[in-house]
Amino acid sequence: MRGLMQDVPLTIDTIFRHAEQHHGDVPIVTDGPAGRSRSTYAEWAQRTRRLGGVFDTLGISADGRIGTFGWNSQRHLELYFAGPCSGRVVHTLNIRLFPEQLTYIANHAEDEVVFVDRTVLHLLWPLIDTMKTVQHVVVMDDGGDNEVPDDPRVLDYETLLADAQAVDFHITDEGSAAYMCYTSGTTGNPKGVVYSHRSTYLHTMGVISPNAFGLSVRDAAMPVVPMFHANAWGIAHAGPAAGAAMIMPASMMQPKALADLIVEEGVTFTAGVPTIWQGVLPHLAGRPHKLREIGCGGSAVPKALSEAYREQVGLPILQAWGMTETHPVASSGILPPRFEDADDEARAAWRARAGIPFLGVEARIVDADTLEEQPWDDEATGELQVRGPWCAAAYYNPDAGVELTTPDGWMKTGDVAAMSPDGNIRIADRTKDLIKSGGEWISSVDLENAIMSHPKVKEAAVVGIPHPKWDERPLACVVLKEGETATEEEILEHLKPQVAKWWMPEGVEFIDEVPKTSVGKFSKKDLRSRFAEYVTKQ
Amino acid sequence: MRGLMQDVPLTIDTIFRHAEQHHGDVPIVTDGPAGRSRSTYAEWAQRTRRLGGVFDTLGISADGRIGTFGWNSQRHLELYFAGPCSGRVVHTLNIRLFPEQLTYIANHAEDEVVFVDRTVLHLLWPLIDTMKTVQHVVVMDDGGDNEVPDDPRVLDYETLLADAQAVDFHITDEGSAAYMCYTSGTTGNPKGVVYSHRSTYLHTMGVISPNAFGLSVRDAAMPVVPMFHANAWGIAHAGPAAGAAMIMPASMMQPKALADLIVEEGVTFTAGVPTIWQGVLPHLAGRPHKLREIGCGGSAVPKALSEAYREQVGLPILQAWGMTETHPVASSGILPPRFEDADDEARAAWRARAGIPFLGVEARIVDADTLEEQPWDDEATGELQVRGPWCAAAYYNPDAGVELTTPDGWMKTGDVAAMSPDGNIRIADRTKDLIKSGGEWISSVDLENAIMSHPKVKEAAVVGIPHPKWDERPLACVVLKEGETATEEEILEHLKPQVAKWWMPEGVEFIDEVPKTSVGKFSKKDLRSRFAEYVTKQ
Repeated sequence: MRGLMQDVPLTIDTIFRHAEQHHGDVPIVTDGPAGRSRSTYAEWAQRTRRLGGVFDTLGISADGRIGTFGWNSQRHLELYFAGPCSGRVVHTLNIRLFPEQLTYIANHAEDEVVFVDRTVLHLLWPLIDTMKTVQHVVVMDDGGDNEVPDDPRVLDYETLLADAQAVDFHITDEGSAAYMCYTSGTTGNPKGVVYSHRSTYLHTMGVISPNAFGLSVRDAAMPVVPMFHANAWGIAHAGPAAGAAMIMPASMMQPKALADLIVEEGVTFTAGVPTIWQGVLPHLAGRPHKLREIGCGGSAVPKALSEAYREQVGLPILQAWGMTETHPVASSGILPPRFEDADDEARAAWRARAGIPFLGVEARIVDADTLEEQPWDDEATGELQVRGPWCAAAYYNPDAGVELTTPDGWMKTGDVAAMSPDGNIRIADRTKDLIKSGGEWISSVDLENAIMSHPKVKEAAVVGIPHPKWDERPLACVVLKEGETATEEEILEHLKPQVAKWWMPEGVEFIDEVPKTSVGKFSKKDLRSRFAEYVTKQ
Repeated sequence: MRGLMQDVPLTIDTIFRHAEQHHGDVPIVTDGPAGRSRSTYAEWAQRTRRLGGVFDTLGISADGRIGTFGWNSQRHLELYFAGPCSGRVVHTLNIRLFPEQLTYIANHAEDEVVFVDRTVLHLLWPLIDTMKTVQHVVVMDDGGDNEVPDDPRVLDYETLLADAQAVDFHITDEGSAAYMCYTSGTTGNPKGVVYSHRSTYLHTMGVISPNAFGLSVRDAAMPVVPMFHANAWGIAHAGPAAGAAMIMPASMMQPKALADLIVEEGVTFTAGVPTIWQGVLPHLAGRPHKLREIGCGGSAVPKALSEAYREQVGLPILQAWGMTETHPVASSGILPPRFEDADDEARAAWRARAGIPFLGVEARIVDADTLEEQPWDDEATGELQVRGPWCAAAYYNPDAGVELTTPDGWMKTGDVAAMSPDGNIRIADRTKDLIKSGGEWISSVDLENAIMSHPKVKEAAVVGIPHPKWDERPLACVVLKEGETATEEEILEHLKPQVAKWWMPEGVEFIDEVPKTSVGKFSKKDLRSRFAEYVTKQ
């Protein structure tokens, strides 16, 4: 027997019309070198419809790829909706990728046009001749001072918009492609994930729900996490869908500028990676604000950082977990009522976990070889695998041998995790960052957390280095806080009561900073090659 | 180009597993004549899986209809999930329907079994021989004292459950039927609405979102609105989906019992029709509670009632709008931030509206004959029509001539509404309750609101009565508060400054109570026939 309900597809133009019709007076604020510009969803919607007309004028194919290369801004939000709502596919180019990766992904996705913020034009323009399918470069003047090349391919965003006709949006197939995001693994070529209208819609509903970010008309949402990477954790869709004000930092990503934006624009919700919040803390501490939630993810949130926010800003950090392949948000950890009477330590320990999978994502941990499920006892670990309508099924035209899905239909995350009895995820490590010592696994993440609880330590990364007897042994790479000094012995003494003896690092190397990948994560590949020749003590 | 995301269906077993795996320790409390029983989602899940086994034992067809006839209880929640999760269709029989309507719908839906609470067995059992397809009557002993018939068709719920095997749930087609709800119009036979897995899932996500009921693990949700009517406004799904505790009043629906449950079980969210909240108010006023939101709908929420809650309970009532055909919740009106500095009057006026359609529901007002769209200026009225994945497309095997959908694919609601410029719905009337006087429309709802603002008036219903010159004229039927007396002149004087002269009722009839339909709405059909011979004054 069939249900007798309307066959209305889950498409992004529904979100667009919702914001246009019902939240027209809600503000969109974009920061910039020349100050903040103010607009509304009504203006944004009108411009977005005209942007659909621009795509027609430029002759973009019916499902052509539209590259974007820019900060979090109102214009980027126009592209986010005009693209999929007119049937095209928005391909967000990560401005922090290496040049050869940018060339690779623009060609692999077959971008027909790239929209670029003037402040980052110098990163893109030198590559333009290597991007074989790109016919137009549309410059969005965000107050940057890069010279705009005198070239027939170069067009101005506002000029195009002023001349364009507004168009109607009617997507009928919820399975059609909406966005492409490439994920830059530490090996091989970047891999393209293709979000659909349906997956975007459902992820948006998941992100809005109160167990996640809980967005409503009462909020002013500031995505610090970039729109050029993993769709800004869904906030760029959740804002319009919830009628929340959008506060866009654009290129003004300095910690003080972010803190000012939070305070002055009444931001209630924001999200970004731990490094960002580390930097913002001293600029926000003690100031009046309206924040009710700070989302954090991308890499594990140090407990110390969350607690520092609780003490100095008045609210702890909410940890979320996910990856480009999960749209990206898949779990988060808001505190259930049973912690009402718990002490700070117990609450902080809960918050330090990756959280409960959202409704719409199912999770399991398995032996990666046998696919045998591991028990949820918070001790057994296994590869975390997920399933759900906003999990990727496959990469876009992947290199030979790259497989995302198990034979029984689950997505391989490459994370190693344990699960508490109620299915709260504790990420133990990335599969490839685990250290195999004498046949046993050591979690680099657990060691890093233990080291980072030392008051003099700013950052720590632990990598496996070759060892003649044990195959691999951990090496601690430590960045001290400004003005501090410490010895290897001091760090190791601090670790002793916290970790098993055979987990103790072979040595401690003090470094100036932990090298980061293009998306701000620790680049352990760099550290491993830097210390490949490290001579162990025994 | 297609998205490359997992093809995972939106099904109710996903919600079930989410609650089972991640919220096992969250309480479910069911009130009853013998006191409150306490359980958890873990126990509920285990029992629900066994209930799936019971259906197999009873030989219920693969998509057979399972009738339920009972209060809001844990057992009803087991049926709500075991039915659709095992492929069957749960048909909730409204215990307040007239006997001939119950017979009609059980036969029309072809129910194979009916699960009935012992407290209401006396309403069902006399009809059982008229229900041609019903082979089993399963009695749920909720502490009622009805005698259980000695009949081979009668079985005991707990006995069946104790003997059953737990089953696995795997629904693969999100379009398959999950529930049937009949809506008892005031004319013709009841009409069956068939919800699908997909529509239920999406409505659940909509109801959870913070612009609606905003449910999370932090909540204890008490559905007062019955599970036997319009699926308890989605709360029976939203609770498990959000990991909120469920507080079930069962047969203990007396105002004081409800107030006690709210206070003693720490209820944070509840919802019901205005009549309920009218009754509960004196029992709740001044007592400590944890309520953060009271949802209300089914009929217009009198402004005075909402304001009384604000003053005496500490929070106003949240108005929601919808109907069985919209699953049922389609819009609600949480206050946007621009009202922060508004006065009480402006805030109350906003709250008295039906609210903004949820993401997932699009609305329009049209001339019912020409389908011409009417402007959103808060003055023009038209039939409210809606579109979205949780709006019904058609009734189940309807009588000839019953049409739910317009030729261009919108659902006809039968409500007459105006829309504010930002698409906030103001229900003017039911199409059939509008009074056509001299070719012009008079809103019975507007007149009722004006009369109910008189301090002596408890309830008022306005109906159209035949008039030789004007075709129809309004008649006010007024129920006074206990101990009050008033004259017709007094009521009309009160109206004069509020409504146009030609809207003034022909007369005022003082009655003991407004007759109600089986779902607690004003039965204007009854009033119209009672006063059909009313002689007008001119």
